Amino acid sequence: MSTPQYTIYPASYLREFTERVFQYFKVGEEDARQAADVLSKADIRGIDSHGVARLKTYVDMFSIGRINPKPEIKIIREKKSVATIDGDAGLGLVVGPKANKIAMDKASAYGSGWVSVCNTNHYGIASYYSLQALERNMIGWSMTNSSKIVVPLWGAERRLGTNPISIAFPGYKNPPIVIDLATSVVAFGKIEQAKRQGKSVPEGWMIDGQGNATTSPDDVYEGGLLPLGSTREMGGHKGYALSAMVDILTCVLSGANWGPFAPPFALFEEAPKESVGKGIGHFFGAMDIDGFEDVDVFKKRVDHWIEVFRKTKPAPGHEAVLIPGDPEHEAEKVRIKQGIPVIQAVVDDLVGISKRTGVPF
Amino acid sequence: MSTPQYTIYPASYLREFTERVFQYFKVGEEDARQAADVLSKADIRGIDSHGVARLKTYVDMFSIGRINPKPEIKIIREKKSVATIDGDAGLGLVVGPKANKIAMDKASAYGSGWVSVCNTNHYGIASYYSLQALERNMIGWSMTNSSKIVVPLWGAERRLGTNPISIAFPGYKNPPIVIDLATSVVAFGKIEQAKRQGKSVPEGWMIDGQGNATTSPDDVYEGGLLPLGSTREMGGHKGYALSAMVDILTCVLSGANWGPFAPPFALFEEAPKESVGKGIGHFFGAMDIDGFEDVDVFKKRVDHWIEVFRKTKPAPGHEAVLIPGDPEHEAEKVRIKQGIPVIQAVVDDLVGISKRTGVPF
Repeated sequence: MSTPQYTIYPASYLREFTERVFQYFKVGEEDARQAADVLSKADIRGIDSHGVARLKTYVDMFSIGRINPKPEIKIIREKKSVATIDGDAGLGLVVGPKANKIAMDKASAYGSGWVSVCNTNHYGIASYYSLQALERNMIGWSMTNSSKIVVPLWGAERRLGTNPISIAFPGYKNPPIVIDLATSVVAFGKIEQAKRQGKSVPEGWMIDGQGNATTSPDDVYEGGLLPLGSTREMGGHKGYALSAMVDILTCVLSGANWGPFAPPFALFEEAPKESVGKGIGHFFGAMDIDGFEDVDVFKKRVDHWIEVFRKTKPAPGHEAVLIPGDPEHEAEKVRIKQGIPVIQAVVDDLVGISKRTGVPF
Repeated sequence: MSTPQYTIYPASYLREFTERVFQYFKVGEEDARQAADVLSKADIRGIDSHGVARLKTYVDMFSIGRINPKPEIKIIREKKSVATIDGDAGLGLVVGPKANKIAMDKASAYGSGWVSVCNTNHYGIASYYSLQALERNMIGWSMTNSSKIVVPLWGAERRLGTNPISIAFPGYKNPPIVIDLATSVVAFGKIEQAKRQGKSVPEGWMIDGQGNATTSPDDVYEGGLLPLGSTREMGGHKGYALSAMVDILTCVLSGANWGPFAPPFALFEEAPKESVGKGIGHFFGAMDIDGFEDVDVFKKRVDHWIEVFRKTKPAPGHEAVLIPGDPEHEAEKVRIKQGIPVIQAVVDDLVGISKRTGVPF
């Protein structure tokens, strides 16, 4: 159990490498810059699983022709503040920002904008999109489905992805409140981490292939993760319901592959035999704050909210109550100055990608 | 520990009694009918805590002048698909349906409608409103705050209500998917029930006044409920974040009393010394399905989703995976035919209300 070895890179170095790798796979200049920016934001905000560590998977997906490098993103149906968008099998990192822009433009015109997106792929961190809305004085919403790993309450087989929900609210002097949560009890990465370290996981995180509770991370490959809340007694039906909500808004509404039919985003995962739609799905929302309240009044109220919650008497053993988004904001402050620590396994991947594409690293 | 005694009443009998009680307190005829319908729907759907069992609290609130029987509900700011509404201190059971209608009318005009509501009171079950949207071929959203009972993760004092989220999706041949969940690990009623029965509660439901985990229901009066997920390890930061989301959308956006400042909805609860807005807050949303997809196509996809999820292999000890809304739908089928079982304590309350108001029971 040695401490993993890190190499520190400036965020800009990793972002530029990523951009050039996407260009190698025929992604247009502007789209490649946009896609690299989404991955970079994850690295900067300390969400290491969704940054440059994922580049190899995107490369794999390009290699097997699963991603269209030059998608023509189309609105296939709309009514003023709402629309359904077809991502033309493009990179989620390209389709997502374009679809989110449509939602925000609708919010400028109609007070709010809501788009459900089919025929897309993995879109990075959910909060990239809700953060974009803040720049336009909007409240941003973002959701996506992903391939099956989560078991519905009382089920013994995977049916849902980790299906995250993000929403962000701007502060006035304070940094924004940024909610970004998987609707599973934990991220899959936590199980993989325990496995690497030879540790067991807490009861309530997962079940084995027979549907029984287990604490052995090896069992996850036959079994699956539990939804937020874990058991009926602790509210597992609520996590399942939230995951179902994301599945329906992102896929059933747009015509993407919902639930167990979501195509996997990894070469080693078996693809579902049946398809019920196109690609995976996203859902974006934007609400123009000015339609509800004077923007500065609202932001000052958010500041007041943050200050009152920070002053909550802490429970024994804890220093303070956090505000959603605090850990990522802290990471951002440090990493912008000091760079991004990349573990050796990911460095090896990047070197491999460099050899394969000729993009220097 | 004897089984509680029930008396069965037809739903219509309880609804008409409720309607006449509201009229006694000077609520207009149409508003009284509407308000009674909201409580009745809770009884019919088996959510006993939110039906006629709550009538006494509404009567108490009228008695101390906390509710305006003839509110003039006003849009105080709007931009096409969004608005902020002032409920004029009316019954939440009257303000809620009117505000929800504004959201649905906006969805008819602009594809979606979203309203944040201040200066209102307890609005009954969250799913009453999302169900209304289904009648207009819309996806319905509903949230409300409530007085403080939930502790933020790592906190030792109450800061949030049970802040529920509801969303409903229509099926074609199947009954709708109706999600309606408190963002706390359990409802407060579960703690009260354990207390009455002299039982302890599972670890992870609540903390005592010092912020330590406890299983003794008596501790809740000094302590509080934990958010969905309970601990950091099991995702308690996610339940806290969802509750914060509801608090901000319902109150910070509308100018209602958020977090610990929400006025209590019970005579025995101490009112907060400080006010930061007007009344409590709700948030309603409606999305016109036709703006995204042909309505029948969408409903048939929802049917397919339901059928696939029902067929999930069940975990040992369970018969089947449920669809969100199943238990309430089952209750509805039985109670429409057989009537509403009312426990003796509530019957006593209703008899008391009858004596006080002269409305026969």
